[in-house]
Amino acid sequence: MPQPEPAPRGRGRRPTGEVRADVLHAAGAMVLSEGIAQLTFERVSKASGVSKTTLYKMWPSPGVLALDAYFHAVADTLAFDDDGDIRSDLLRQLHSFARLMRTPGGRALLEFIGASQSDPALARSFRELYSGGRRALAYERLAKAQSRGEIRPDVDVRVLVDQLWGAIYHRLLVPDEPVTDEFVEALVTNLFTGIST
Amino acid sequence: MPQPEPAPRGRGRRPTGEVRADVLHAAGAMVLSEGIAQLTFERVSKASGVSKTTLYKMWPSPGVLALDAYFHAVADTLAFDDDGDIRSDLLRQLHSFARLMRTPGGRALLEFIGASQSDPALARSFRELYSGGRRALAYERLAKAQSRGEIRPDVDVRVLVDQLWGAIYHRLLVPDEPVTDEFVEALVTNLFTGIST
Repeated sequence: MPQPEPAPRGRGRRPTGEVRADVLHAAGAMVLSEGIAQLTFERVSKASGVSKTTLYKMWPSPGVLALDAYFHAVADTLAFDDDGDIRSDLLRQLHSFARLMRTPGGRALLEFIGASQSDPALARSFRELYSGGRRALAYERLAKAQSRGEIRPDVDVRVLVDQLWGAIYHRLLVPDEPVTDEFVEALVTNLFTGIST
Repeated sequence: MPQPEPAPRGRGRRPTGEVRADVLHAAGAMVLSEGIAQLTFERVSKASGVSKTTLYKMWPSPGVLALDAYFHAVADTLAFDDDGDIRSDLLRQLHSFARLMRTPGGRALLEFIGASQSDPALARSFRELYSGGRRALAYERLAKAQSRGEIRPDVDVRVLVDQLWGAIYHRLLVPDEPVTDEFVEALVTNLFTGIST
């Protein structure tokens, strides 16, 4: 993992945004490779060169830092390309997402959702730091497709998020059936083509 | 809560199926009114008139008994009517399900799914006692609709479960958006009509 550059004018003078980015970079690499359970302020401090005191000031708990770092680390992977065809863009994004969910980071995400069922503060952090932003990205891309006439104007695109990513989460959270490539493709086909005869 | 009938020939002689039904009835009423957290063998024993020793023999833990009781208690609510029209049958079932999920029993179900993310034994029990059976009921009704020509023959009906109930679970587990009646209706319309222009 690359170490942050030494601060040119002493750590105390470094801009907050820069310190924050260093921490998120170091913590993100940890979450993606190991999951969330072993992430402590101690270890993030060592990896990022940022003091534990500063970490405590910037994040209320290691769990919240882990979520924040996770979101930043996967932002690119989960970005929506806009190649002008919503079906192929969705397929590419959903396949990326399904792959990501098979990594330790993805497993960690499911444990976050799990723990947040009995921890309202964690649930709030999860929505603020992760799921709210993810939904917004999806809405934006889907609304653009709708404005281009690829999706019927009377469709509430917010519902599609639950019928695509939500359906994948469902198979991961209650794994009665596996998340296969065919499953991901069927999600998109069913919605766009419709299942009626 | 109705007490079980006294055993006519002494408790030792009662058929296992009958004892089991009494316990499930008493425990099911508790789960639906209070959720799962407070359910103990002690309280179920008092409410059902079945000894704790017997409960320990029949269920490995109060959590597993709670799940088993929950499934039996809601089996009717969640049954699929077959009125010959899959869209209206689905809507009726999905609305029932959404309503059930707003009760303490529904909240308990989300906590089960949550806890099972870090407890493989509970996850297995959940699938064996609850979600596997629920999926089977849905497959059966959907396959019948497919055989009647209401759903295209190339559709894998297993995927529909994730795009209908799974989508509702997603909004409940990560509540960025509410589960409204309009949401439930949109789930069915999107799938059957298709969202393409």
